[in-house]
Amino acid sequence: MERHFDKELDGLKTSLIKMGSLAEEAVRLSIKALIENDPALAHKVIQEEERINSLEIEIDNAIVDILALQQPVAIDLRLILAAQKINNDLERIGDHAVNIAESVITIQSCDDRKQLIFIPKMAELAEQMLRDALDSFVHNDPQLGMSVLEHDDTIDELNRNVFHRSVENMKNNQRTIEMGMHLTRISRNIERIADLATNIAEEVIFIAQAKIVKHRAN
Amino acid sequence: MERHFDKELDGLKTSLIKMGSLAEEAVRLSIKALIENDPALAHKVIQEEERINSLEIEIDNAIVDILALQQPVAIDLRLILAAQKINNDLERIGDHAVNIAESVITIQSCDDRKQLIFIPKMAELAEQMLRDALDSFVHNDPQLGMSVLEHDDTIDELNRNVFHRSVENMKNNQRTIEMGMHLTRISRNIERIADLATNIAEEVIFIAQAKIVKHRAN
Repeated sequence: MERHFDKELDGLKTSLIKMGSLAEEAVRLSIKALIENDPALAHKVIQEEERINSLEIEIDNAIVDILALQQPVAIDLRLILAAQKINNDLERIGDHAVNIAESVITIQSCDDRKQLIFIPKMAELAEQMLRDALDSFVHNDPQLGMSVLEHDDTIDELNRNVFHRSVENMKNNQRTIEMGMHLTRISRNIERIADLATNIAEEVIFIAQAKIVKHRAN
Repeated sequence: MERHFDKELDGLKTSLIKMGSLAEEAVRLSIKALIENDPALAHKVIQEEERINSLEIEIDNAIVDILALQQPVAIDLRLILAAQKINNDLERIGDHAVNIAESVITIQSCDDRKQLIFIPKMAELAEQMLRDALDSFVHNDPQLGMSVLEHDDTIDELNRNVFHRSVENMKNNQRTIEMGMHLTRISRNIERIADLATNIAEEVIFIAQAKIVKHRAN
């Protein structure tokens, strides 16, 4: 029985790692599509969303089965409840990548790339946060999870900067308005991705330390 | 044993209903603060967030305890897993209400209220969706849950309209830029609240029908 349970738990972890890879790839490609102004790549991100959505449902069902059949307690139970949240967070990250991809398609004829401002830097940091959050889950490394939490404020500040710089640009040149609106939308989606990576890192810390670090700033 | 479990399940449901009321009130007051340009009320919404955050953690802990001690199966297990998601959705709704409240404070000196465009209508519909989603949970009424799902497209369309009308206004009068940026931010937050209300309704349907209706449009 015990051995069977371990195998199911490993299976769940493997599925979540796959889900993490899909979400990470969606983010990476949506940002690549933005920076290289590649609407075909953006369309690919939108098409791939279906795989993330299906896997989310598959993992949710696996969680119900494991809980019903194995009735785990203590650390195993915590791991499984955290898995449900991480699964949901990853699906939302996929949604945000799709939002970015949709904006890329809308702004494809605007070639004013210098308006991107801090977005590549922001995206790089958000991608790093997501990678670290997933690695901290895979390797059960709460220290790495803690490092993700530290970057959240930097992302928030970069997002605010994009907002204010866009407003300035728009005021100075009304032809930048449409692009500026989409760039602030993209910036906000990146900020949400970083936020969800932070949630994942918090779950990893929760699993490891049985300590809730959410809402620590309140 | 059975009677004790029912009592715990009722307790969980009561806590979630309380969480729902807090989230609903946060949304209602943030919109009231917007429409009446009342920054003091917006500050109140921000202060109250702490209660929502604390209750979220309390409910999460109660869920771990119930699962560990009672090891429920079938419909009870599904109810508890859905409760974890609904809890998380309600906390996020509280976050969006706070975002709206923050925008209200930022735009308080702008008295151009006619720029609100479709926002009161959108907010009214989102509030109705949240109320119905919570009622469908309280009364275990999947039919009412289904009606929530039907409004999601309307909200999306209203959100797009706010975006396009704001861009038009900004192009015609650059003094509307800052306000327009905040109004599209508010509109998006309302759209996210409606989206989370839709998630809650989907969970209610899932509990009742053991059928996943998520990603139905894919």
